[in-house]
Amino acid sequence: MKLVRFGNPGAERPGLIDDQGRLRDLSSLVADVTPANLSPSALEQIAAVSPSKLPLVVGERRLGVPIAGVGKFIAIGLNYGDHAAEANLPIPSEPIVFQKAITSLSGPTDPVVLPKRSKKSDWEVELGIVIGTRASYVEPSDALAHVAGYCVVNDVSEREYQMERGGTWDKGKGCDSFGPVGPWLVTTDEIRNPQALELWLDINGQRMQQGNTRTMIFDCAEIVSYVSRFMTLMPGDIIATGTPPGVGMGKKPAPIYLKPGDVMTLGIEGLGTQRQQVHEWSGVVEQRP
Amino acid sequence: MKLVRFGNPGAERPGLIDDQGRLRDLSSLVADVTPANLSPSALEQIAAVSPSKLPLVVGERRLGVPIAGVGKFIAIGLNYGDHAAEANLPIPSEPIVFQKAITSLSGPTDPVVLPKRSKKSDWEVELGIVIGTRASYVEPSDALAHVAGYCVVNDVSEREYQMERGGTWDKGKGCDSFGPVGPWLVTTDEIRNPQALELWLDINGQRMQQGNTRTMIFDCAEIVSYVSRFMTLMPGDIIATGTPPGVGMGKKPAPIYLKPGDVMTLGIEGLGTQRQQVHEWSGVVEQRP
Repeated sequence: MKLVRFGNPGAERPGLIDDQGRLRDLSSLVADVTPANLSPSALEQIAAVSPSKLPLVVGERRLGVPIAGVGKFIAIGLNYGDHAAEANLPIPSEPIVFQKAITSLSGPTDPVVLPKRSKKSDWEVELGIVIGTRASYVEPSDALAHVAGYCVVNDVSEREYQMERGGTWDKGKGCDSFGPVGPWLVTTDEIRNPQALELWLDINGQRMQQGNTRTMIFDCAEIVSYVSRFMTLMPGDIIATGTPPGVGMGKKPAPIYLKPGDVMTLGIEGLGTQRQQVHEWSGVVEQRP
Repeated sequence: MKLVRFGNPGAERPGLIDDQGRLRDLSSLVADVTPANLSPSALEQIAAVSPSKLPLVVGERRLGVPIAGVGKFIAIGLNYGDHAAEANLPIPSEPIVFQKAITSLSGPTDPVVLPKRSKKSDWEVELGIVIGTRASYVEPSDALAHVAGYCVVNDVSEREYQMERGGTWDKGKGCDSFGPVGPWLVTTDEIRNPQALELWLDINGQRMQQGNTRTMIFDCAEIVSYVSRFMTLMPGDIIATGTPPGVGMGKKPAPIYLKPGDVMTLGIEGLGTQRQQVHEWSGVVEQRP
C-alpha cells in the first residue's frame, strides 16, 4: 500500500495511490495518516477496503510528508562504506546516530531553502524507515516487525554547520526544509527486502548519487534494533538510514554545493521519486510537515 | 505564573501554583498546557483569572512535564566554563547544540531508569528555556521576547553512550526517563533576569553541583538567537542551557555514576525542585511526557 497526504501545507488529507498510480481520497476511512494508523491492525483495516471504492482525486496535488505527527526524525551517519571513504571518515564500528529537527520535515516536492548565508548545503538520498509499533530493546530478528513501511528521505545537510561549527552534527542537519520525506509511505508488504533497493539522486539532471541498499554497513534490522537500545522508538518515528556515495562534499576535483535554482531529483526503487528546487533564503520558511 | 500538569502519566490536567504554593485546577480555562497556550496573549488570558477562583486540588499529586506536546528538546553543551574544564574539553567558541529524544521527557519526580547494562549514567542540573512564540533568525536583543518561561531540567546523560560509542552525543542523552522537566513552567514575569539564578543538585543529600546562571558562557538570549539560525524554534520547544560544574564524570579521584537506589534532588532559584530515585532497568519504561 502506498499512503500519502495531499493538499496545502498544514491542510493535508489522507490518500493512497492505487494500482494504476492514481490518487484516491482516504478521508472516509481515516482523518489523517497518523502514528495511530501505522499498527498492523490499523493498516489492515485500510488495506481491507478496495481502492476502487475510494473517491478519485483529480488534478495535480501537492504531497506532504506522508505521516502527520512525526515524533522523532532520527538519522544514521556513514552507513555506506564507500560514502565514508569519500567523506574521509573511518568506517564506523557501530551506527552513528543523530537527530534531524522535526521542523526540517518537508514535502517531497517542496522547495529546499538554503539557510541565510549558507555556502555548503549538500544532498543525501536515503532509505527512510517508518516505525509502526513501539520498539524498545528489540532484537535484530524481531526488529522489522516494528516497521510500518519505507519512504524516500533527502537528508539535506549544511556541511559547514555540521562539521566546522563545533559540537554535534545536528546543527547542519535540521534547518527548515532540510528533511523532504515521501512521496509515499510504502508499507512492508510491498517491500519484502529493504536491502536490495536501487537509490539515486540527480542535480539538474546529472547523476550524482547511485547506490543500492545492499551495501549498507548496518542493515535496517540492525539499525532499528540498535537505536531501540538508546531510545524507545514510537509509531511514526522516521529513521533515515544513511547515504550512498556521490554527495557534493566528496566531489573531485572540488566539492559541489547547492545553489539557488538547482533542481534535485531523487528516488528509490519501489518508493517513488522526489523533486526539489533550491531557493535562497528570503524570509520565513513556511512549515511544511 | 507557575503552570503545571498534574495527574497520572498520559492523563495529566492543567494547573497552576498559587501564591500560597497550593495547586489549583486550570481545566475550566484550558484543556491542557499546550504550545498554543504559551503565546503572550494566551498566557495573559490565564493570568487574568484570579487563582482564588480556581478549584483547589487537595492531596499529593504527581506532576508531569509542565508542557504537553513538546516538539523539540534541544540542549546546549559545555556552557559553563568551569564545567568544560572538569570535562577536560576546551571552552567552545560557539554554542554546542544537540537534541534529546522527546521520548526522554519525564515528570520532575518520576524515577530515572538506568538503561540496560548502563554503567556511566550521570546528572546535570540545567536551566530550561520554554519557547512561547515562533523564532527564526531572531537577534539576541529580541530573543527573550520569544520565551514563555523557564523550568528546571535534569539533562541525565550516559557518558559511555555519549562519548565512547562513536558519533554524536545524542546517543547518551535521549534514553527513556533521561529528561525530567519541571515541576513548574514559570513565566517570564516572575524571572526578570534568567542570568542570576542559583542552581544545585544533590545525590543522596550530598551537594554535587552548585552554580549560578551568571557564569554561563552564552546567555539565554544568545542561545535562543543562535539556535534560531539553524532551526525554527516553535512554541513548546525546550532548550536546556548547559550545566555548572560537579557532574559525576568529573569527580576526583574517580568518577561517580548513578546506581539503583540513588536519589537526585535538584533545583533552581524561583523554579522549584525535582527529586528522582534511580531505578535499574526492569522492562518497558512507561512513557511519561
